[in-house]
Amino acid sequence: MPRFRVPEATVERLSVYLRSIKKLKQERILPSQELADLVGTSDGQVRKDLAYFGEFGIPGQGYRVGILKEEISRILGVDRVWSIALVGMGNLGAALLAYSGFKRQGFEIKAAFDNDLSKIGKVWQAVKIEDVEKIPQILAEQEIKMGIIATPAPAAQKVVNKLIEGGVKGILNFAPVRIVVPNGVKLKNVDLSIGLEALSYFLGDKGVAAD
Amino acid sequence: MPRFRVPEATVERLSVYLRSIKKLKQERILPSQELADLVGTSDGQVRKDLAYFGEFGIPGQGYRVGILKEEISRILGVDRVWSIALVGMGNLGAALLAYSGFKRQGFEIKAAFDNDLSKIGKVWQAVKIEDVEKIPQILAEQEIKMGIIATPAPAAQKVVNKLIEGGVKGILNFAPVRIVVPNGVKLKNVDLSIGLEALSYFLGDKGVAAD
Repeated sequence: MPRFRVPEATVERLSVYLRSIKKLKQERILPSQELADLVGTSDGQVRKDLAYFGEFGIPGQGYRVGILKEEISRILGVDRVWSIALVGMGNLGAALLAYSGFKRQGFEIKAAFDNDLSKIGKVWQAVKIEDVEKIPQILAEQEIKMGIIATPAPAAQKVVNKLIEGGVKGILNFAPVRIVVPNGVKLKNVDLSIGLEALSYFLGDKGVAAD
Repeated sequence: MPRFRVPEATVERLSVYLRSIKKLKQERILPSQELADLVGTSDGQVRKDLAYFGEFGIPGQGYRVGILKEEISRILGVDRVWSIALVGMGNLGAALLAYSGFKRQGFEIKAAFDNDLSKIGKVWQAVKIEDVEKIPQILAEQEIKMGIIATPAPAAQKVVNKLIEGGVKGILNFAPVRIVVPNGVKLKNVDLSIGLEALSYFLGDKGVAAD
């Protein structure tokens, strides 16, 4: 099963499909149209997204719920637990450390870092906060490949460099600043205002309809 | 220009297009293929998304950068400032209140609420924290139509009901729990682990390629 040139949008839709499928308790055959309806996309989109990864549907009928769940989990690599390093233990970092959604999806924050002497050495949520200077060493020791940036914007790039030095290959960035990573490292920027823009559209829409 | 049955995915892509277009400093004609490349989608997808809102491209050439920026801002309703109510002033709420990305995109947190007596009455980021019991009254007074939920999961639904009582029509939910809203109210759930799943895919992909 070759995996190449799969669009990022497809990968994100796989996450959304998986969440919907996980809510289906009963083993049965799920037509692609029904899956499309569940997540608000088209039948064709569902079939195109899944076709990147080979044929695991029943032609003309759909997908077995259990198999689809297993296959998408395996494709996304969420059929295992990932160890995560979190950098920046301000309000956002503290919230992310406590966020139950990560662990539920198989992401476990194993190391946390800050540069504030009043925080270093403290234990929050059973994780000891370490000095950012120790990032490369601790990440290499623990073989952590994924990092989350929750620092203020000016500190983000320096911290990213340390994560990469420590062997991190994937970075989720919450700092509202553009950061640069070398080839071979995957960066995802989280923009918390995208959701508000969608609301803005739907609220504005109502305004227009009432005109 | 009728606006009906526009898919949510299209609305989210409009936000992504707008971010890319805003980085283009020079006025010129932007081919749809170039916009597609900037955001990592297909030419056809760009044209389909924009076609929902009428024809503002130059046939066979593309879109004027300035006009496209204005049109998408207007469509999304982000050519104005939205007042927002934020509920739950724990770590996540405090982080969201301080998040510079909201204001930059035209979303201003005007009211903040908690049920913790040690927080009520305090002023954070120039916003006074009020008692959750006052949500309906304060929202109606200030005509706030959008709310953000940053409470723990068990409190979320009760708080949502109060927002709706106060006239809110759009809710962005960070609490990792399913909440219910009546018809006429738009709900967006934020799942912070979606970004990690995309990283997981790309890291796993490399592992497979190295086999």
